[in-house]
Amino acid sequence: MELVIVKDRRIDYDGSAIRSHWAYRNFGILGNSLIVFRGGCNVKVEEMIDIEDLRASKEIRSDDMVHYIIEVFDLVNTLFASTLQKLFIARLCEVLSGYGVKTTRKGDDIYVNDKKLSISIATVSPVSVKIHIGINVEAKGIPEGVNAIGLKELGITDVERFMRNTGRALVGEFKKVKKDSLKVAWAQ
Amino acid sequence: MELVIVKDRRIDYDGSAIRSHWAYRNFGILGNSLIVFRGGCNVKVEEMIDIEDLRASKEIRSDDMVHYIIEVFDLVNTLFASTLQKLFIARLCEVLSGYGVKTTRKGDDIYVNDKKLSISIATVSPVSVKIHIGINVEAKGIPEGVNAIGLKELGITDVERFMRNTGRALVGEFKKVKKDSLKVAWAQ
Amino acid sequence: MELVIVKDRRIDYDGSAIRSHWAYRNFGILGNSLIVFRGGCNVKVEEMIDIEDLRASKEIRSDDMVHYIIEVFDLVNTLFASTLQKLFIARLCEVLSGYGVKTTRKGDDIYVNDKKLSISIATVSPVSVKIHIGINVEAKGIPEGVNAIGLKELGITDVERFMRNTGRALVGEFKKVKKDSLKVAWAQ
Amino acid sequence: MELVIVKDRRIDYDGSAIRSHWAYRNFGILGNSLIVFRGGCNVKVEEMIDIEDLRASKEIRSDDMVHYIIEVFDLVNTLFASTLQKLFIARLCEVLSGYGVKTTRKGDDIYVNDKKLSISIATVSPVSVKIHIGINVEAKGIPEGVNAIGLKELGITDVERFMRNTGRALVGEFKKVKKDSLKVAWAQ
Amino acid sequence: MELVIVKDRRIDYDGSAIRSHWAYRNFGILGNSLIVFRGGCNVKVEEMIDIEDLRASKEIRSDDMVHYIIEVFDLVNTLFASTLQKLFIARLCEVLSGYGVKTTRKGDDIYVNDKKLSISIATVSPVSVKIHIGINVEAKGIPEGVNAIGLKELGITDVERFMRNTGRALVGEFKKVKKDSLKVAWAQ
Amino acid sequence: MELVIVKDRRIDYDGSAIRSHWAYRNFGILGNSLIVFRGGCNVKVEEMIDIEDLRASKEIRSDDMVHYIIEVFDLVNTLFASTLQKLFIARLCEVLSGYGVKTTRKGDDIYVNDKKLSISIATVSPVSVKIHIGINVEAKGIPEGVNAIGLKELGITDVERFMRNTGRALVGEFKKVKKDSLKVAWAQ
Repeated sequence: MELVIVKDRRIDYDGSAIRSHWAYRNFGILGNSLIVFRGGCNVKVEEMIDIEDLRASKEIRSDDMVHYIIEVFDLVNTLFASTLQKLFIARLCEVLSGYGVKTTRKGDDIYVNDKKLSISIATVSPVSVKIHIGINVEAKGIPEGVNAIGLKELGITDVERFMRNTGRALVGEFKKVKKDSLKVAWAQ
Repeated sequence: MELVIVKDRRIDYDGSAIRSHWAYRNFGILGNSLIVFRGGCNVKVEEMIDIEDLRASKEIRSDDMVHYIIEVFDLVNTLFASTLQKLFIARLCEVLSGYGVKTTRKGDDIYVNDKKLSISIATVSPVSVKIHIGINVEAKGIPEGVNAIGLKELGITDVERFMRNTGRALVGEFKKVKKDSLKVAWAQ
Repeated sequence: MELVIVKDRRIDYDGSAIRSHWAYRNFGILGNSLIVFRGGCNVKVEEMIDIEDLRASKEIRSDDMVHYIIEVFDLVNTLFASTLQKLFIARLCEVLSGYGVKTTRKGDDIYVNDKKLSISIATVSPVSVKIHIGINVEAKGIPEGVNAIGLKELGITDVERFMRNTGRALVGEFKKVKKDSLKVAWAQ
Repeated sequence: MELVIVKDRRIDYDGSAIRSHWAYRNFGILGNSLIVFRGGCNVKVEEMIDIEDLRASKEIRSDDMVHYIIEVFDLVNTLFASTLQKLFIARLCEVLSGYGVKTTRKGDDIYVNDKKLSISIATVSPVSVKIHIGINVEAKGIPEGVNAIGLKELGITDVERFMRNTGRALVGEFKKVKKDSLKVAWAQ
Repeated sequence: MELVIVKDRRIDYDGSAIRSHWAYRNFGILGNSLIVFRGGCNVKVEEMIDIEDLRASKEIRSDDMVHYIIEVFDLVNTLFASTLQKLFIARLCEVLSGYGVKTTRKGDDIYVNDKKLSISIATVSPVSVKIHIGINVEAKGIPEGVNAIGLKELGITDVERFMRNTGRALVGEFKKVKKDSLKVAWAQ
Repeated sequence: MELVIVKDRRIDYDGSAIRSHWAYRNFGILGNSLIVFRGGCNVKVEEMIDIEDLRASKEIRSDDMVHYIIEVFDLVNTLFASTLQKLFIARLCEVLSGYGVKTTRKGDDIYVNDKKLSISIATVSPVSVKIHIGINVEAKGIPEGVNAIGLKELGITDVERFMRNTGRALVGEFKKVKKDSLKVAWAQ
């Protein structure tokens, strides 16, 4: 899994990055990848992947987020996608714990003091698993009714460093997962 | 995923429980299952799944452990097995955090103050994913050279309650993973 | 597999219900589902799944049908889709036999005295198996040249009860299929 | 799917024919196959595939049966195995109906007047789907407590013709299933 | 794998033939197929499958080519698609060697004296593997900067015979591959 | 795919190297691997994978061979195994052509002037694709009736260099196959 941290510019997330080969088309990265970038979030209805949100006519918006776009080509399956997503969210909570932030994970959502820090979706394209995770930098531009929080309110102000720390943690986790999958004999 | 917590007897883990349909053969549980039980651990060489351990001639032993045997039939793949295993380990760490125990997760190992609390393996049979997790109740009967710790040293003395809490947490996690895998549209 | 029988309204089938997650989008049903409803049938060319029909410029029309929309997420494969479809058609014939109707099944078609009672298609989306079965309530609005028959001509006038009986039979069949798939050891 | 009907000799079924490539090893048939033969049935415990039977310590015995051994290499999956098995059982009931025999199918069991006519198992090897179906020629040598019936009691005395008729019907069914799986466009 | 050699007319390749079921829609061929035809080549940007070419804004053009469109339904996987493509290219080189033409294969490209003879792409649809191979008949209408060569320059002037020879060679290769996949026991 | 060329010792091939994780167990190589070694060949009947040979009671023997053991974990499927095997054989022929040796490939066999240079088998374990290729160094110890030839008769006397050249060529081929599988958009 190759890691790209976009530092030189903002990229807004409108949902289209969830499509297959987005990392290759935009960054020339072949194969498993994690692209970390920063920008606003406003998911267009036609790009909405979470049918639960669609049915509830939820808006997915934030003015400033750290975004993670993961693509894995090893196995095309929604149960695997959903499992990997939760593992990545748990890993992010562990990194946040290293920052002294106590989080509560509910599936793929991260809460701090009952305030929502993140959004996430995991699905498949016909050739890959795709995961998006977004973490609020500031709780601004959030849909009404959502009690949100951001990294700045948590005292994490060096956002670029946070992007690097979390990016490396997620890639490290995936490499360990992959390595372990290769060292075991099959069971009868 | 059906949960069985074996309270009325001890079951020693010798590695054979990693075989397919162990839960059905022994408990009559069809389909995805988590069996939680307590007993010693002494994995026979011919049941060793971790080839890394085999190559290093490691012993896998403990006098008293809480064991988790998971079987999932939805998807037969070692990368998925390894991912689900790490997620379950992360979930156990979250439960331990609720007990006030600060853990460090390294892949599928749980440490408390650099002492090893757990062992784990994840693989596939030809029809299922199989995962074993063992958590020391006491750090006794551990192979020499391993700096281990157990639940009792951590102040967790109601082991049966711990088995129930962790069992429910893992099953709840899997149900959330499964549910989320069904609610997402595929991406282009 | 969850069963929904739509009793309070008619739904016309234009082919779009063959798309993935139709049951979740329209009825909030997550996972494997069978939705039974009643309405007309007029498949738009752009929704036609059967390329054989497309090539022959066949029309797929009927004024009044009982429709079954099945979605299964366990396994995405057209051979499995086609097999499950035939089994469901065979099961419907068994239920009709309970009504005293002697049928002839030819693959996925049901005939009574050489008259066509049903239409059906089975395929995959990128995340699921999808099957549509339609049974004429009355042989009206059928394309010219098709010698058709409907439930009413066969003396089955309590259509809602038929929808319930057949819906339960198909769901029961699937549950048995699923259960049996979990109780067998793998062969060498 | 190639059809072989063994007419020149009896073959007893002891369970070992459920192993992969049995048809190729014994008859030189490559690929999907249906071998129909006649002989006794006495499944050795170590060849028992049905864990439900194993747990109940059931015996699987009959003095004289028509046996069907099916192997399909297209898709290795127990849910598909179980689905195809039920479809084949339903097809056998349709053929029996052509003989004037009214059957009741319960999953993979065929009953005539509440008497058991058949046994069956479906599973996977690491490379194929394997199905065994056995139909009593006479209800002799059956385990105690099983209320059984055979073809002879049903007036079907030309067993070789029955083997041919059913063999062709099953192969025809599979060919239709396969053909239909290839003619459908995928759904969105 | 069925072989169709289109002799009675030219078909220009614009990229749309890479879509699933193209052979069935246009030639009524069900299942695995190889369609060989002759015509120009000018791939529309919206049909471009090779993202590397897209990123480099390459044009894919030639005035006169022999085209091969392969569809295989047995296994839907890009690694298999890419492997089969290379094998087919290697087979074409072997046929060319029979014509006395010494080629160099670089992955999926055929060169003669450092001049490019062919283009090729391999991918998956949601139901099949699809491969396109194009061999220049004459090096005309090629994008600037590409040093190309064609069959005519190599002395192969009976193009229809070349289409037949290569078509049969590729189908023969696939049949051998398939047969061999069925005759091997699985390994522990 | 990692390449290991064993130079310091001979390893005889008795068929057991076809088992899964042989490279990891013996060389500590995790994941996709190609191990090239030199030694005799005498496949034990109980390790015979090719059922065609078993049925014909063929012996598989040679006094001195270069052996290639390939393991690929990306995709467990016999059709893929068989395709990759043929591609590797074709690649070996291309390398031999660079040595000035004109070969004829028939599926997975290499012939020089109608004399057999190689043996090969490709299959799956429950977790991987496994391929063995053996090339005679000298045509000694070959089963009677086989008209064989070896590298020495072809003038290739620097066997270690040949092992290195071919090993690199096969690994290079696989890397190209893998890379290309990741750069293509899926087709409709």
